[in-house]
Amino acid sequence: MSADRYLLENRKFIDAAILELLPGEGSYPEVIHKAMHYSLMAGGKRLRPSLVIAAAEAVGGDRQTVMPFAVATELIHTYTLIHDDLPALDDDDLRRGKPTCHKAFGEAVAILAGDALLTQAFLMMTHSALMASIPAKCLLSATHEMAVAMGSGGVIGGQVVDLESEGKPIDPETLEYIHIYKTGFLFRACVRSGALLSQASKSELAALTQYGAHIGLAFQIIDDILDIVGDEKVLGKDIGSDLDKDKATYPGLYGLEASRKKADDLVEKSIRCLDSFDNRADPLREIARFFVQRTY
Amino acid sequence: MSADRYLLENRKFIDAAILELLPGEGSYPEVIHKAMHYSLMAGGKRLRPSLVIAAAEAVGGDRQTVMPFAVATELIHTYTLIHDDLPALDDDDLRRGKPTCHKAFGEAVAILAGDALLTQAFLMMTHSALMASIPAKCLLSATHEMAVAMGSGGVIGGQVVDLESEGKPIDPETLEYIHIYKTGFLFRACVRSGALLSQASKSELAALTQYGAHIGLAFQIIDDILDIVGDEKVLGKDIGSDLDKDKATYPGLYGLEASRKKADDLVEKSIRCLDSFDNRADPLREIARFFVQRTY
Repeated sequence: MSADRYLLENRKFIDAAILELLPGEGSYPEVIHKAMHYSLMAGGKRLRPSLVIAAAEAVGGDRQTVMPFAVATELIHTYTLIHDDLPALDDDDLRRGKPTCHKAFGEAVAILAGDALLTQAFLMMTHSALMASIPAKCLLSATHEMAVAMGSGGVIGGQVVDLESEGKPIDPETLEYIHIYKTGFLFRACVRSGALLSQASKSELAALTQYGAHIGLAFQIIDDILDIVGDEKVLGKDIGSDLDKDKATYPGLYGLEASRKKADDLVEKSIRCLDSFDNRADPLREIARFFVQRTY
Repeated sequence: MSADRYLLENRKFIDAAILELLPGEGSYPEVIHKAMHYSLMAGGKRLRPSLVIAAAEAVGGDRQTVMPFAVATELIHTYTLIHDDLPALDDDDLRRGKPTCHKAFGEAVAILAGDALLTQAFLMMTHSALMASIPAKCLLSATHEMAVAMGSGGVIGGQVVDLESEGKPIDPETLEYIHIYKTGFLFRACVRSGALLSQASKSELAALTQYGAHIGLAFQIIDDILDIVGDEKVLGKDIGSDLDKDKATYPGLYGLEASRKKADDLVEKSIRCLDSFDNRADPLREIARFFVQRTY
């Protein structure tokens, strides 16, 4: 199955699970739940939950068992977007072709909606329904994994250095730090969580960790490239916004061609990490290829 | 032991554990860790971690076992303060006698420091060190409890309604909703978590839940009163700030005397909830009395 078809198929189930597990849009107080739904349901490929699912499948687990946890990773991703877009941070007006959360609901509600999504994610990750088929220790490890990835020594650390680096000359090490921490850590944690929830062996987990690290960095390099050569209509956001903000990017430091090659190499490496896996890891292989072929 | 002495004694251990469990102030990227330490170590009575500890002790648990979880509740409390103080929310300049986090570090870092503290709290709650002496299922239940309390159906819900109610006439039901959700839920969750971590029986948990609900509401009523009659130097924040912001308060709706009586009644009720507990619940009894006697 191609990555496109696999992602589309998963997306139906993920979107249904989001609506099932999230407090309804009309729940009191309405404005916060409307804002949470607005940003969560604004589109998106659901790559992170799909990686949780694909990693689980690669080691013999299944989609339904890990679904609440998979959904939680999309909530986490959405929270980072809402807070990133705030005027005090990236100050973006458009996200996935629609006004950003603070443009639609005001800054106070956007801050709280981000907080609520992060909190709701941990609520879902520790939900007793998961314990029916996943050992409590595995669930705790996966939840801990996610908290480590998202904290000040992970994604938030990357965001801070990204902010501090705006408008300054940047060295390759700092750029790699930003990309790995700000973007790569969540992808890697999704892959590792899916494996942990499905009781992967130590060697499986080690291989998947490497896989996750490689595709995470590749994803951000392609994101940088699409910000220059992408189609605004397809991307649903302004092109050239990194340039406008004087953000550090791979093409900015290495040029387009070398950046594209680096991403291709990373994806090749990531697929080689899966050599000892059977065809149940095919979705992971396809997703890796999709990461560098995507145009959106 | 008086509540003052009990809290002071606990505080030493809690502060030491915070410094042990939090990434150091000099960890890269420094600015975020400095901001986290700044707000966490700005003072505070450590009431929430002490309630986790006191509830654990009341059902036969001990301080050391629950400490990482107890510390996590202080991180959560601090995150709510940092985000509450932001210009888009309460826009406060002073907290515990010092500039608020965004005044000291800027808005972007303050938003991310709040996010990082919330995330670090879940990291601590799911730390494998806790599993040495607490069954994984109990740990998951307590972590889930905390996520439910802090989400859009809990504390954040209360914050949203509080914001929406500013400058509008308010009915008693809405005021009680704000106080119970915005302040009470975290106190109740601290008490319940301490009990869950120490494998409380169903009836013990039910009694402690009631206790926690009563003291939580009492605490906020006294907070409202202190905002009118308190001493700025002792409180470390501006007096009359609720009034300035046209915030809904108990004294505003019922007057000072009736509010004081309501708080006293709640504390009496909370202590009666502990009737079936032995002297190991004395700290909980003393803390309840402290909640209405406090001047800061």
